[in-house]
Amino acid sequence: MLEVKTPEEVLTLIRQAFAPLSGCEETVPVSKALGRILVRDITATEFVPDFDRSTVDGYACRAVDTFGCSDAIPAILKISGEVLMGQSAGFELGKESCAYVPTGGAIPKGADCAVMIEYTENYGDGTVGILKPGAPGMNLIFRGDDVYPGKVILKAGRKLTASDIGALSAAGEIAVPVLRTLRVGVISTGDELVPPDQKPAPGQVRDVNMPMLTALLQEWGAEAICYGIIVDDESRLRQTVQRAAAECDAVLISGGSSVGVKDAACRIIEEMGELLLHGIAIKPGKPTILGRVGNKPLIGLPGHPAAAYFIAKLFVLPLLDRLCGQEAEKPSLTAVLSESISANHGRAQVNACRLEKQDGELVVVPIRSKSGLITQLAGADGYFIIPRDSEGLPKGAKVQVFRD
Amino acid sequence: MLEVKTPEEVLTLIRQAFAPLSGCEETVPVSKALGRILVRDITATEFVPDFDRSTVDGYACRAVDTFGCSDAIPAILKISGEVLMGQSAGFELGKESCAYVPTGGAIPKGADCAVMIEYTENYGDGTVGILKPGAPGMNLIFRGDDVYPGKVILKAGRKLTASDIGALSAAGEIAVPVLRTLRVGVISTGDELVPPDQKPAPGQVRDVNMPMLTALLQEWGAEAICYGIIVDDESRLRQTVQRAAAECDAVLISGGSSVGVKDAACRIIEEMGELLLHGIAIKPGKPTILGRVGNKPLIGLPGHPAAAYFIAKLFVLPLLDRLCGQEAEKPSLTAVLSESISANHGRAQVNACRLEKQDGELVVVPIRSKSGLITQLAGADGYFIIPRDSEGLPKGAKVQVFRD
Repeated sequence: MLEVKTPEEVLTLIRQAFAPLSGCEETVPVSKALGRILVRDITATEFVPDFDRSTVDGYACRAVDTFGCSDAIPAILKISGEVLMGQSAGFELGKESCAYVPTGGAIPKGADCAVMIEYTENYGDGTVGILKPGAPGMNLIFRGDDVYPGKVILKAGRKLTASDIGALSAAGEIAVPVLRTLRVGVISTGDELVPPDQKPAPGQVRDVNMPMLTALLQEWGAEAICYGIIVDDESRLRQTVQRAAAECDAVLISGGSSVGVKDAACRIIEEMGELLLHGIAIKPGKPTILGRVGNKPLIGLPGHPAAAYFIAKLFVLPLLDRLCGQEAEKPSLTAVLSESISANHGRAQVNACRLEKQDGELVVVPIRSKSGLITQLAGADGYFIIPRDSEGLPKGAKVQVFRD
Repeated sequence: MLEVKTPEEVLTLIRQAFAPLSGCEETVPVSKALGRILVRDITATEFVPDFDRSTVDGYACRAVDTFGCSDAIPAILKISGEVLMGQSAGFELGKESCAYVPTGGAIPKGADCAVMIEYTENYGDGTVGILKPGAPGMNLIFRGDDVYPGKVILKAGRKLTASDIGALSAAGEIAVPVLRTLRVGVISTGDELVPPDQKPAPGQVRDVNMPMLTALLQEWGAEAICYGIIVDDESRLRQTVQRAAAECDAVLISGGSSVGVKDAACRIIEEMGELLLHGIAIKPGKPTILGRVGNKPLIGLPGHPAAAYFIAKLFVLPLLDRLCGQEAEKPSLTAVLSESISANHGRAQVNACRLEKQDGELVVVPIRSKSGLITQLAGADGYFIIPRDSEGLPKGAKVQVFRD
């Protein structure tokens, strides 16, 4: 019999038992790559910009021609041209001359700095007074300053953000090699379940976990493959789990709160592979099972939707992150508890909460509910965790809230 | 001439100048409703569960028949039936009798509590010993405990999470009325720009803002409508802005770093509606314009991609939140700065950063870059803000990091 593990032990177990997927790549256009994970370094093949550029509106010139100038004794330079936006300068700057350049415009050959227009005076006779000395490189971006051939723009393993999409576009990357979307099988079990669009007969309830887990997986970025509701029948469950394990990267088996089904799920996992975990010291969510078939995780989630939800957030999504080689620090908010809350069962306790502004301060209002109710999660803004060795938290305690 | 405003003043201006959209709803299936915003309260029409349910495996009985019992003196009850999962009990419990119920099973009429199987002993002769007294309601969920007709499950304005999808499914909601997806027009301006899939000629660069802003809007949940690259031609820009304002809920005009185009954008906004803001005391991103045509915002973003990115994150997304009636507290991480960073220009400074683990501690590594470079954002994990009245932050300072 496997021992019940603490949440920290479970996360360590996940890191030890599962390795990042390899050899599962596809190429997608950069415009479709948001949130996808790079499988190889992206190395530039071009110079960006491909020309020396001004970062200001002003006059390009040779810095040496401006040394020592001031408001009182401007350096007088001959205007030998104007650079138009989006065009090459097309001329070379001689000594003691200058050319107007707009922000982002190309710097003519011969110039080595740009002086902001604010520090110049156009005398209207074909000359300009420079009132503040330049220095070589001042207000310039040189060819390749941003990107040059061979520069690694983004590294393998990067989950692409909007700004990465910008950087890839700048460098002329049209398509990128990414990890294909993970496929996660979802199986609901329970004789009492009917699909959500069906009216339950006496003794029946709707299957909440299927749509909820599907939404959670979608939000994370996986494709949920739904295998429907399996009544408590071990051979049908075995067939379905085998099929899902063959077709998917991970399988979630939710429900089966009866002892018989839990045992059946354990037996099926042991037949197919290895049972790694049976029970987490957390409330709600103790009856959680984790196994593997090769590098594929099979996870038995509690039937209660609230428990299934928290276990999925706390352990299933980190497991999927692990399969993608991601180790994300989860953002959170710290705020003050609006009322005291007790906990005395020797298990870490996950509590749904709302965030409210009271007198301009953000406070955490715990949602209290009978165990097993579903709507405790409706309208929640997030959750916090009461540590297992705590008997609760007093009003005013600072708690770390993770957003839904 | 409008004055440059601080970031806080800009956020206040946004709240004052724009109202949440109304009358823009559509009905979507619950399975497609993740991240959408409810426009009306969702009120239940059914009882969930529709029967009294046990929350444990054990025996349903009348609590009064167990009062005073103990390990030493069990209450002996006759087994008068067994409830099967997913079925109604179908019988009524008489005095001094009990019935086996699984977790989630229906409680027979007459019973008012369930005793966990661990506190019972089946004598094998048709009777069970109860070793611990029950109390009325113990281990039961009553009909309608979760949801009852008339109960508000979720309120108007709620941005639906995965757990909300679960709660809606539990209550038998198949479709929900939500705010339609916002349409945001994106216009790039600049004679130097070419589309990202085109090779720039001398003096040209690729249009980075279009794909970057499109990705950012997609991530936020809006539909980006791309109006292409407009060269610096006031009448074409006017036509395009008018068309975008007619077709979209908000319009982003990016680029046009030259003084002429900035002035043109201001003129066009003033002709069509009202100019609200010309300049934000922030670096990068000072040359930002905000106007409105009715309740529709027109935003002029800086041409530099890094500046456009930060301005979009800091002001455009909150503006879209405002149009949707959302006022979200942004999650963040607090971590320690790995090295000192200076800032002395009297404007708040936004700085991209990476998050790294050093000796097990999360540290914030500022990304240093010449102004105007694009790849400073590639591979960034987020950004932090140095307040305007600070001359910088020392190594070891705690900074609040917002994730990309």
